[in-house]
Amino acid sequence: MHIKPDCIGCLLNQSLKVSKLLELDDDTSKKILDRSAEILIDHDLSDTPPQIAKDIYQAISAITGEEDPVSLSKERATREAMKIDTSFVQSIPDALKLSVIGNVIDFGAQNQFDLQETIQKQFGLSFAIDDGEAFMRELEKAREIVIIGDNTGEHVFDKLLIEMIQKEYDVLVHYFVRGTPIINDVTVKEAQLLSDCAHIVDTGVETPGYDLEEANAASREIFDRADIVLAKGMGNFESLYQQAERDIYFLFIVKCTVVAQAIGQEIKEMIFKRSF
Amino acid sequence: MHIKPDCIGCLLNQSLKVSKLLELDDDTSKKILDRSAEILIDHDLSDTPPQIAKDIYQAISAITGEEDPVSLSKERATREAMKIDTSFVQSIPDALKLSVIGNVIDFGAQNQFDLQETIQKQFGLSFAIDDGEAFMRELEKAREIVIIGDNTGEHVFDKLLIEMIQKEYDVLVHYFVRGTPIINDVTVKEAQLLSDCAHIVDTGVETPGYDLEEANAASREIFDRADIVLAKGMGNFESLYQQAERDIYFLFIVKCTVVAQAIGQEIKEMIFKRSF
Repeated sequence: MHIKPDCIGCLLNQSLKVSKLLELDDDTSKKILDRSAEILIDHDLSDTPPQIAKDIYQAISAITGEEDPVSLSKERATREAMKIDTSFVQSIPDALKLSVIGNVIDFGAQNQFDLQETIQKQFGLSFAIDDGEAFMRELEKAREIVIIGDNTGEHVFDKLLIEMIQKEYDVLVHYFVRGTPIINDVTVKEAQLLSDCAHIVDTGVETPGYDLEEANAASREIFDRADIVLAKGMGNFESLYQQAERDIYFLFIVKCTVVAQAIGQEIKEMIFKRSF
Repeated sequence: MHIKPDCIGCLLNQSLKVSKLLELDDDTSKKILDRSAEILIDHDLSDTPPQIAKDIYQAISAITGEEDPVSLSKERATREAMKIDTSFVQSIPDALKLSVIGNVIDFGAQNQFDLQETIQKQFGLSFAIDDGEAFMRELEKAREIVIIGDNTGEHVFDKLLIEMIQKEYDVLVHYFVRGTPIINDVTVKEAQLLSDCAHIVDTGVETPGYDLEEANAASREIFDRADIVLAKGMGNFESLYQQAERDIYFLFIVKCTVVAQAIGQEIKEMIFKRSF
């Protein structure tokens, strides 16, 4: 998905958000914002938001000297997610919903809200688009599934989804992760948690979305041959929307007007759609 | 008031807002955002938000060829304000409150909300800081008052304030306006509405706030000698805070975290404070 003018201010604000998270002084924050502004000027409207986010986060790393600037937030999100009582998840559709709700865990938030309560509240809502039935039918015949991970923290719920699927079906699950720390996205390091139920695949991708141009050959081959690909979160949607030739199940929460307009839905809606 | 890192994204988003208001195509919007980003890089943390806003709006004018890009919104805001039944305003303190509430009229808003209802609701709230008593005492002895206008639309309510003051006191009111169209700020053109009750003063200032460095000699002289100066809106606060040597009554609604932090108040609070 190409950026729209709205994405520009949004991407700049992400730099500010990281500056605050790292408690940087005003001068360093200004340096980061200036460099981000330069990056935004250098990119044109044919790039995707994740492609630009990659450059911005690399600049933040270079300026701060932090290879993984939000590592502490990632650890906190994982801890919080692991505390959740998930006994209410009784089926694969339940697990799909918890997995997408995990996407509301914001890396910048201090988790001062009651996560369990937030999840229960969101769990009572329906998907705006729900291709769950098609997914269940495809599962019957599937041998290999790809799940493209998104944020750290929600990967705890992805694990539950994989376990629920494997309880009923004999499938190999490949769990795709980013090739390098980018925002709070799950990498090989965080994904170790899933190593007993899934084949962790380092995609080599440095953008916060599975960008086909960046994907290494190994992940591309699995991506192409898998019976089912399930891409989580808005970053993967932005990278794959209208790019991939194969069918993909997109599982995400609409978080901005640009994506909302692209798919004709509202902000905050939960989406589970087999290709767009 | 110097900018903080938060102001950078906010100023960029104002460019986007104007782009949308003018219904510009994506390429022109990108051009405006790129130029705005350059301007933000060129300014450092010692500048005020209105100083940067001036450069951004001049760039928008240059790119679009519109000398007053939001002129239609200004006309609409004035029309909407003039429709309001203000019979509930019975005193100078009432008029002060309506005058600051006028500051919620957003130039970008389509006025789809019920303005009368919004005003009545806000009118029931109290000022977070209210130096109204000191103001009334000073009015007793005042001969010349300066009111520094802010947004077009709210100037209709400023007129009512001036009329209420003049009903009780024999004072000359100088109404300060910007020297050129900048955002939706009131200029000589819009201020004609007040010419029968106030002396309209073109300050020559091109920033969306009465910047002392830009003010022409005529307005500076009146500013220095007036018995009372009342500066409206956040732009004037940002330009004058810790800059002016004389006492000023600041009358505004807190609209952002940066100003909220500077004065130790919350967003949305109404402020009427004799100097800071």
